[in-house]
Parts: sequence; C-alpha cells; structure tokens
Amino acid sequence: MAATSWENSVKSLKGVILDMCGVLYDAGEDGGTPIPGSVEAVKRLKASDLQVRFCTNETQATREVFVAKLQRMGFDICVSEVFSPAPAAVAVLKERGLRPHLLVYDGVVPEFDSVEKANPNCVVIGDAAEKFSYQNLNDAFRVLIGLEKPVLFSLGRGKYYKEDEGLNLDVGVYMKALEYACDVEAEVIGKPDPMFFQKVLDDMGIQSQQTLMIGDDLVNDVGGAQHCGMKGVQVRTGKYSSVWL
Amino acid sequence: MAATSWENSVKSLKGVILDMCGVLYDAGEDGGTPIPGSVEAVKRLKASDLQVRFCTNETQATREVFVAKLQRMGFDICVSEVFSPAPAAVAVLKERGLRPHLLVYDGVVPEFDSVEKANPNCVVIGDAAEKFSYQNLNDAFRVLIGLEKPVLFSLGRGKYYKEDEGLNLDVGVYMKALEYACDVEAEVIGKPDPMFFQKVLDDMGIQSQQTLMIGDDLVNDVGGAQHCGMKGVQVRTGKYSSVWL
Repeated sequence: MAATSWENSVKSLKGVILDMCGVLYDAGEDGGTPIPGSVEAVKRLKASDLQVRFCTNETQATREVFVAKLQRMGFDICVSEVFSPAPAAVAVLKERGLRPHLLVYDGVVPEFDSVEKANPNCVVIGDAAEKFSYQNLNDAFRVLIGLEKPVLFSLGRGKYYKEDEGLNLDVGVYMKALEYACDVEAEVIGKPDPMFFQKVLDDMGIQSQQTLMIGDDLVNDVGGAQHCGMKGVQVRTGKYSSVWL
Repeated sequence: MAATSWENSVKSLKGVILDMCGVLYDAGEDGGTPIPGSVEAVKRLKASDLQVRFCTNETQATREVFVAKLQRMGFDICVSEVFSPAPAAVAVLKERGLRPHLLVYDGVVPEFDSVEKANPNCVVIGDAAEKFSYQNLNDAFRVLIGLEKPVLFSLGRGKYYKEDEGLNLDVGVYMKALEYACDVEAEVIGKPDPMFFQKVLDDMGIQSQQTLMIGDDLVNDVGGAQHCGMKGVQVRTGKYSSVWL
C-alpha cells in the first residue's frame, strides 16, 4: 500500500481488532511473556479515539482465566472486550439443539458447562494440544462415523502457533484429519470465519472498512479480515518471525 | 458385472493378489483372528493354477513377524509372497539418498535398520497407532517445517481399519494432518500407489489384466487395482461389514 493511500486509510479508521498470541504475547509453558512494547501499544490505542477489541482463537482456557493472565502481564483488558471461539460455539450448539462430544483442552471445558453433552450428535474440537492423543482422536472419530450425518465443529483452523520452545500444531491439522477420515467438511467457528469477525464489528457498531485487524497469521488474521472488507496488517512477531525471519 | 462376462474374466486369470487384514483375518489386541473359511480359501487358491501373492499396507510389524503370526493362524504363507510398504520405502530412501525421521510403530522400526537416520531430511509415517501422540506428531512437523523443501512419505493412505473393538484411525488421516500443516503433498508408498502394485505383478511375471485383487477397502484395494487394469473384488468382511452392514 502506498504511503498516501495508507494515511487516508488510517484517517477513516474507527476501530482496531487485535489478535493476541504472537501479537500481545508469546505463549510458553509458564503462561507466556508479553512482546516488548505491546503493553504500551494497547494503552496508547485505548487512549485514542479508536475502539479496541481483542479477537483470539485461543481455546485452552476460559475467557476469564485467559484475560486474568493478560492482566497479570500488565495489559489493560477486560473479558467483555475479548472474542473467542468457545462462547460462539456454545451459541451455535444451543441454537441447533446439538449435543457435543468435546475434544478440547481441559481448561476450556467450563465454557461448555451449560450445554447438554449426553448421547452426542456432533463433535467439537479445539486446540487440545497434548490431549490430541491417538485414543482421544479415535474416540472423536468413532462418534462421527457412527452418526448418520457427521457434524464436526472446529474452533479455528490454524495450522500451528509459536511457543517459547518452538512451533506447535494447532487445531486445524486435526480438523483436516477428521475431515478426511469421515468424508465431512468441518464448520469452523473462530477466525477466519466471517460470522465471527462480524460479531466483533457489531459489538463496536462500526463497518468493516472502518476497521483494522492486526495479527501474526497471514491466513486467519490478515486474510480473514480482508475477506470481510477490513484492513489487515501482519506483525513481524509471533509465528511470522519464527518461520520467515 | 454380468455372469457371463465374469466367467470369461475368471478364465483369463493367472494370478490373485490378496489383501490381508479384513480379508484373511480381523485385527485385534491378541494379534487377531482368522476370518472363517479364509485359511481354507488360501489353501485352495495355492492348489490351483493361479499364482498367489499377498499385498498389505500393514506397517506395525516387520514382514517376518507379521508372516509368522499368519502362519500361527494356519495360513500357508511365506515372507517372499508378501508385499508391504516398509521395504518399498527403504528402497526409495536409499535410491534418493534420504535420511528419514520415522513416525512408525515400534514393531516396524527394524525394517529401517539399514537406513541412515541422523540429521533427517524427510519424514516417514506409518500406522503408528498410539504412537501418534501430540508430541510425536509435533516432532515430525518440526522436522518437516524446518526443511527447505519438506518431503513426507506415508506408508499407505488408509482412513481407518477394523479391530475387534471397533474402527481405528489409519495413517492416512495423519498424512492429511501433516500435509495441511506444512503445505506439502505426501508421497504414498503402498496401496493404492500403482508402482506398488506393479512390483507385485513383476514378481508374478503376469499382466495386470490377468490379475484379480481381493480386498475389503474400496479405495485402496479395489479402486487401486482397477486403476492399474486389474480386476478388483471387495469382500464383505473387515471394514466393509463394520460400516455398511
């Protein structure tokens, strides 16, 4: 984008959506560490006239636990500003009367407390990390293959993310595995699903062309945002720096 | 196929290739059990004028161990009659000077004893079953993503197979997972790869149209054989009976 065009774009901005992992902090076994300058950057954005929201495909913890972690790192952030796939999935499940078999990280299970889970008629997978054992994936497969019409929800479709010790496989690769095993196409809840971004825009009460998305994932953050008519910017931290630099 | 056409086809047959798991025996934790009538059927085929070979995507044991198991079940079978992916993979690796990172079942590792494995420049996956942990798949992913041009071999591309207690995910779903994670297309060694079937035909010294393939997998056995010009017949045992009946 040429400098003048970029300046004009910035002038029309009314809101900014920030990805979290790889943009605000780097994940790690100790909960992660803030990326230098990011605490201050959020502070400055919130002091500006721009609306600020946070949009993550994080599915290893409830929003409450996740936001508390970010607050401890020094970020000015609250739960109502954060959009993540699990609450969106709960809304979809209830609307369609579906009872999920969950293959998700233990920490995010409480998000599904209000959903009936006995006698499952669909499967929901999140970033289950080490819970993606052969046995657990096989259990999810057997639920799906036993349904007359398999229904699979994937909380995001990311390929991998960066933790302190290197790149880790994300939920998308297990989504592809189950899609292939069962000849089914997963319904993705989270970035880059346009409906997911639309909820953030609705919450801010602004249009997509007035909004900038900042993320480290070229497909799920930048591409997803651009597909919805937003502007998208890729940071050079997170998974960007660990693969391309 | 009409009866007369079928009879004419049978008259021109000179060889039969038999799939093993789901055709000769059902897999299980105790090593599996022969399918009723199959021991006798192999005996009759071998007593006929037809050549007989066995073609499996089994990659949980060396051929020696695998054949010994079948012999204990009562089958008239020897190692030289059995074609499986691991020896074929070893030939490819040596030919191309590749050093594999192996993600395979412990039992098949000895097949790769003669291959250099330090400083890997490719990944080979087989039906690793419970060894397909998150950590092991992530290790294989990190090897691939760290290569300038990722090379992934998959010993077969099956979706699932039947064991006594139900259906189990096969190597193909993990192949799809790594393909997606690394934007790479795996090279499949084993059924339904035409080169794999061709080696069996070469060993018998007959043409594809003189050969019948009998299997329980519509894609990897029957479809793969037909794609090579053989006749293909699907049995109603193995994974067929557990899904469609």
